[in-house]
Amino acid sequence: MRLNIRTLFLVLSTFIIICTVSLWSNCSNQTFDTFSKNIKSNYESLVQNIKPIDCLINGNSVHVDCLIKNSTVYIPFSFLKNYFEVYGKIIETDDNKKKFHWSHSYSKIYHQNGKYDSRGVFTNFQNYKVEERDRVKCVSASEGVPVSTQWNPHGYYYPTQIAQFGLSHYSKNLTLPSPKRKILENGQLNPLWNVPETSKIQIAFNAQVNSNVIDFFSTDKPISLKIDSKEEFFLSFDVALSLSTRSSIVVTIKDMKEQNEVWNLHYICSRTFIFAKGHNIYHGMHCSREFGWKKLTRNVLIDLQKGLHMLKKTTTKIFRSKYKLCDFKLYGVGFLDNLTLSSSDHISQFYAAAHWFNKHQDKESGGWINPVTRKISPVIKSLKPGWLSAMGQGQAISLLSRAFHHSGGNEVYLNTARTALKPFKIPSKNGGVLSKFMNLHPWYDEYPTVPPIFILNGFMYSLIGLYDLFSLAPNGSEVSQEAYALWRQGMTSLKNLLPLFDMGSRSAYDLRHVTLDIAPNIARWDYHATHINQLLLLATLDNATVIQTTAKRWIGYMNGARASHN
Amino acid sequence: MRLNIRTLFLVLSTFIIICTVSLWSNCSNQTFDTFSKNIKSNYESLVQNIKPIDCLINGNSVHVDCLIKNSTVYIPFSFLKNYFEVYGKIIETDDNKKKFHWSHSYSKIYHQNGKYDSRGVFTNFQNYKVEERDRVKCVSASEGVPVSTQWNPHGYYYPTQIAQFGLSHYSKNLTLPSPKRKILENGQLNPLWNVPETSKIQIAFNAQVNSNVIDFFSTDKPISLKIDSKEEFFLSFDVALSLSTRSSIVVTIKDMKEQNEVWNLHYICSRTFIFAKGHNIYHGMHCSREFGWKKLTRNVLIDLQKGLHMLKKTTTKIFRSKYKLCDFKLYGVGFLDNLTLSSSDHISQFYAAAHWFNKHQDKESGGWINPVTRKISPVIKSLKPGWLSAMGQGQAISLLSRAFHHSGGNEVYLNTARTALKPFKIPSKNGGVLSKFMNLHPWYDEYPTVPPIFILNGFMYSLIGLYDLFSLAPNGSEVSQEAYALWRQGMTSLKNLLPLFDMGSRSAYDLRHVTLDIAPNIARWDYHATHINQLLLLATLDNATVIQTTAKRWIGYMNGARASHN
Repeated sequence: MRLNIRTLFLVLSTFIIICTVSLWSNCSNQTFDTFSKNIKSNYESLVQNIKPIDCLINGNSVHVDCLIKNSTVYIPFSFLKNYFEVYGKIIETDDNKKKFHWSHSYSKIYHQNGKYDSRGVFTNFQNYKVEERDRVKCVSASEGVPVSTQWNPHGYYYPTQIAQFGLSHYSKNLTLPSPKRKILENGQLNPLWNVPETSKIQIAFNAQVNSNVIDFFSTDKPISLKIDSKEEFFLSFDVALSLSTRSSIVVTIKDMKEQNEVWNLHYICSRTFIFAKGHNIYHGMHCSREFGWKKLTRNVLIDLQKGLHMLKKTTTKIFRSKYKLCDFKLYGVGFLDNLTLSSSDHISQFYAAAHWFNKHQDKESGGWINPVTRKISPVIKSLKPGWLSAMGQGQAISLLSRAFHHSGGNEVYLNTARTALKPFKIPSKNGGVLSKFMNLHPWYDEYPTVPPIFILNGFMYSLIGLYDLFSLAPNGSEVSQEAYALWRQGMTSLKNLLPLFDMGSRSAYDLRHVTLDIAPNIARWDYHATHINQLLLLATLDNATVIQTTAKRWIGYMNGARASHN
Repeated sequence: MRLNIRTLFLVLSTFIIICTVSLWSNCSNQTFDTFSKNIKSNYESLVQNIKPIDCLINGNSVHVDCLIKNSTVYIPFSFLKNYFEVYGKIIETDDNKKKFHWSHSYSKIYHQNGKYDSRGVFTNFQNYKVEERDRVKCVSASEGVPVSTQWNPHGYYYPTQIAQFGLSHYSKNLTLPSPKRKILENGQLNPLWNVPETSKIQIAFNAQVNSNVIDFFSTDKPISLKIDSKEEFFLSFDVALSLSTRSSIVVTIKDMKEQNEVWNLHYICSRTFIFAKGHNIYHGMHCSREFGWKKLTRNVLIDLQKGLHMLKKTTTKIFRSKYKLCDFKLYGVGFLDNLTLSSSDHISQFYAAAHWFNKHQDKESGGWINPVTRKISPVIKSLKPGWLSAMGQGQAISLLSRAFHHSGGNEVYLNTARTALKPFKIPSKNGGVLSKFMNLHPWYDEYPTVPPIFILNGFMYSLIGLYDLFSLAPNGSEVSQEAYALWRQGMTSLKNLLPLFDMGSRSAYDLRHVTLDIAPNIARWDYHATHINQLLLLATLDNATVIQTTAKRWIGYMNGARASHN
């Protein structure tokens, strides 16, 4: 706004004219007074002397442009936000006023509602969306579990991530509405199949699955089934393909916002996790033999998202309202059964993870190996592919314990979980996950480095896993007792060492400063909140005051409280 | 300034009139333009819109009145200073500009100039003024060392404080100019003595000290010597008084600012430390027998300050320019020798402390007991009178080692220092000062509590004491080897445990949070600076990187640096 003396006169005269010609009776004194007061108040705030003042920060090296009003100095938030790492944003309130929201941390605390129940949700994992994360390459069409790119861009199975995937779906299954489900085909030949002339589809008894299934054969054009779903995006089916032909399942999706662009999701017999070209996204099912049966449960929007990510089309969330699931197509030669459309399928995703853990455990060590190099810090030897993680073991045990419970006592899960206890008794330097702080306090290592770095959140996740197995295994059973001993041993260490993670205004992520003689590794606020959430959970299982008081103090830190000085 | 629309009009019209009737040729356009620009610029800064905005701190509980200019929010320092504990003041610069000095901490770092030398100043103690502190009741006329009121208002000898008193004077003796010294009397009868008729003064040979001394006898009125010193305020003398008469030495001081108010400092045969009444301040010499000789070295300004403090006249510093030392008076019956006036007497004060340690060591335990109850925390058992302190032992050893060196090898000091090593080998729970962190790392306790709390600065002072004895005791001697073993053992623990004191943005004063399961006890900035100064000193004696890098990082914390988060 540009103003000079003439516009000021203009404003004044205009006002006087308005006043003079006004039809309202009370214009004269009252309105004039209000106007006069406004000018006066603005003028007073001007002469109240808000002036610039130079701020010298810690000596002369840093200057900041501040303001001074009377004798109060005002510091710009733009400086403070980096200096102190605080957060702030201007919010417009309902009455069009602006307010500035200052926050010390950005994370959320989940308070426990009663004693933790191992049959229930896993911590706050009902909020996790593991497979949507950028560091998930795709959900494997072969295994139905996520493939990680966190430490290797080619993709690998990361046990911790798979456990989190499974536990999040277990938790969502308990907290979200039941899925809508529609059986499209279960071996009675849906009349809506569109079969080209040269192709063939029929019902046939399959000895392998001991059931009637769809037997299909197509040449150039596929056999297809129109679905047209804007609400449900989960497809599950059993399929057995011929390896000698280029057989595949293709699902088409239309982007209704982008000029009806059509995407083809191909599920093919390949060892590749995922690749994409043009409008085609390929997921490899890793068929092991001719007409070997595979069970697939696909969130086709996730499959689309991962393909788009590979094509660099997007790295962010998929908006489901944009899309329509159009067709389900059969190419080549194969069998199909149990084709179902649903709005979600958390429990299948949970069991996919549980099956992965049953299938991929190294029975000798009891571990699920991490097939990547893990570099922790420049001053510590990297972990070579093959290392185990107490956090991965622990979360897998939480998952398998729940699978044992949910399946009504399927002992396969229980036995796998028990075998997974082995590494908790083997020192990290010998391939296990056990270390000792100052040769005294046993600790379960998220990363079994030598020397150990004592990561807190990973340790507490492993404790929760041990507790889950203790409490869900048959009462008094050997496995329950074994898990209990490891859980108590760990809890004793936690109570002894927890104070070492208290930094007076933050929490430490680990104790690498103690073992590597370097600066403390402060937990960012979301890990700090994770620490607190884990402590609040454990406090319902162990009434030691140090757990309660530490959690309370750490919640204070999130609001700017600090331990006092002497 | 109160303004309304009429005054605004008035200002404008006045200006137009001034312009019109102006005799200056160029008034019209140019001046009008300037005026218009000024108004415009003021108005623009007004419409630039520095407006108030409400800041909500961590949710809705705290509101702060902030300012917003364009889209930058400004936070008042009055809020920040408490929230973050930072310091700030407005400084007027030479060109009458105001600047705001923001500082994160208030303490000073002393960088080492070359390798630490045990014969030199003790850390930065040349800056200490131990006897001026409020918690010093007085300098005992009996012992020449400070009497503490820190944990008992009646006053007691606190070994740590006595060591600091001695070490500060040793260090001042090395760094400050040599004193001006004037012998007033040394057994040859100064002709300026003013002797009332009924009194008598003469030279007499005294067999006890094997020397000619003053032999005095006065009745009602004292024998006096005019001194009239405005520069020198140290008096030292040897005196032997009759206990059967009310004999005493009195020094008069005039307050030249307060209508020549006169203060009488009485040095009397009493077990009382100090008392005061009217204009009389009494220091008790604790004469043990009739005509027993005492050597006194008195800073009469300190004696006056402590008396005024007792009379509640002042609790602060004495301004020496206000005072004149007037007379030295003899009351009753006694002997006097070696009366000297000087500007300072650091080395006597140093030796007074060293003598105190020789005299008061408990030969069995090797310790100097602390005769007070020490309450550390509500959650730990108080120390009952009689406890020893590794810091007190260590600083006494630093003092005695220097006395051994400075005296040219007087073995009394060396033997006392060696005996003082005993408690470093006895567990705190058995009356010594030795504890172990996690049953592994030996530690020397400033306060031998059970459980230990591992105070860092006290531990490092004890290490410096051990090093001083090792390096000043005869090369290769048993005592040197014994001190060396304890010093190396302690240094190993320091290097292992130092990281535990790193709080990421401050240092911890101790590890009570680990042993008592409570909040960390953050070191206030002057203790934080002490930690750094001690580390910088120790880094010249041990090249372990953890000492160097920790010191450097902790210096950064004083300027707002923080350990990074993940």
